Amino acid sequence: MKIGIFGTGMAGKTLAEKLFALEYDVMIGTRDIAKTLYNADGDIYGGPPFKTWIRERPDIKLGTFADAAIHGELLINAVSGTGTIPALKKAGKSNLRGKVLIDISNPLDFSKGMPPPLFVSNTDSLGEQIQQEFPKVKVVKTLNTMNAYLMANPGLVPGDHNVFLCGNDEDAKAVVKKMLKKFGWKEKLMIDLGDISGARSTEQMLPVWLRLWGKLQHPMFNFNVVVGRPL
Amino acid sequence: MKIGIFGTGMAGKTLAEKLFALEYDVMIGTRDIAKTLYNADGDIYGGPPFKTWIRERPDIKLGTFADAAIHGELLINAVSGTGTIPALKKAGKSNLRGKVLIDISNPLDFSKGMPPPLFVSNTDSLGEQIQQEFPKVKVVKTLNTMNAYLMANPGLVPGDHNVFLCGNDEDAKAVVKKMLKKFGWKEKLMIDLGDISGARSTEQMLPVWLRLWGKLQHPMFNFNVVVGRPL
Repeated sequence: MKIGIFGTGMAGKTLAEKLFALEYDVMIGTRDIAKTLYNADGDIYGGPPFKTWIRERPDIKLGTFADAAIHGELLINAVSGTGTIPALKKAGKSNLRGKVLIDISNPLDFSKGMPPPLFVSNTDSLGEQIQQEFPKVKVVKTLNTMNAYLMANPGLVPGDHNVFLCGNDEDAKAVVKKMLKKFGWKEKLMIDLGDISGARSTEQMLPVWLRLWGKLQHPMFNFNVVVGRPL
Repeated sequence: MKIGIFGTGMAGKTLAEKLFALEYDVMIGTRDIAKTLYNADGDIYGGPPFKTWIRERPDIKLGTFADAAIHGELLINAVSGTGTIPALKKAGKSNLRGKVLIDISNPLDFSKGMPPPLFVSNTDSLGEQIQQEFPKVKVVKTLNTMNAYLMANPGLVPGDHNVFLCGNDEDAKAVVKKMLKKFGWKEKLMIDLGDISGARSTEQMLPVWLRLWGKLQHPMFNFNVVVGRPL
């Protein structure tokens, strides 16, 4: 199956590598290929710059956002929150039409210092804004409540913990669940929160996620919803 | 020890009963005693009206918000989010001064239908608004991420799950932790999120809490933060 991933950051790279290992045909999309291949900055965890990373993985393709959108039967938005809508516009409405788009982004506004507030929240969400801007795309919000390594390798945190998903299209969610299963997520630990307005609730978990990160001084943790007997 | 609890709803009653069972001297405060004792509405879980409940528990005292503030060495705000600041103003700044106030409320706005949005969030919180309005009070935000029964009886949901707390005063948090321990919370499951601005993060967990409630059709669940090894 062909996958298009928007974004060359930690999440884009980690998911691309995992999907490639799972024998998907992966293309990463970026705004400006030349700029991406010129940039010499390493990643936040001390990894090499993207240009080195992609050179070491010659079978993972690199293209523009539009190239990746055309390539992918299944698409993943791994661009920053602020970059998401512009990136999807660059990808092109007609290239996105009818496809499943997994949105793992969070509406974090890093322009105001740390911790970043959300630039959309409470009565709206980034997931909903994408769905509204691209009504013909089947948006599924998932994986946004954890760090990139854990998304692709849930076993990195031992025991039971959850991945949330939501979206308006049931078949699209079924496709996404299949992919999550291949990543190692047990089906019983996937929590379907219903339609895309559920994105409000998972995006608003970022503030506590960020606070926990600050406290623990590392991002290898996740939430588990523990359920007791009804009253 | 003398406790003053503001609010006659599920949370106020449940905590009053638990604290009384733990041999605290408990007074519940309400805006209008006569009205509270006249109201014949039962509670949302099919329990009796407050007037019946309090008659069956003659050793739990009932007073005005000010009476409860004067009575309590330790205070608990269990009023609705919208009622919180008005209730505390009625309680009286001078009666609250210097005391520890446990705030378990959430800024839910029920005036706009279900699910309720938050009337303060993201860059501010109800916990912070209380602290700002009453700077001489030692506000500790806790217990607001679960239903009332679970607050007072964590064993109702089996296994490990967390209670968050935050506040500006370390000694006040130590007092609150002692009380939580008596409720049955293990110390290792209490997560101190730092100063009162942590209230933003736990209040913003309400949207996912409400969504999970809708999905499960009952409120007997809680969050557990599962931590793996650092990268």
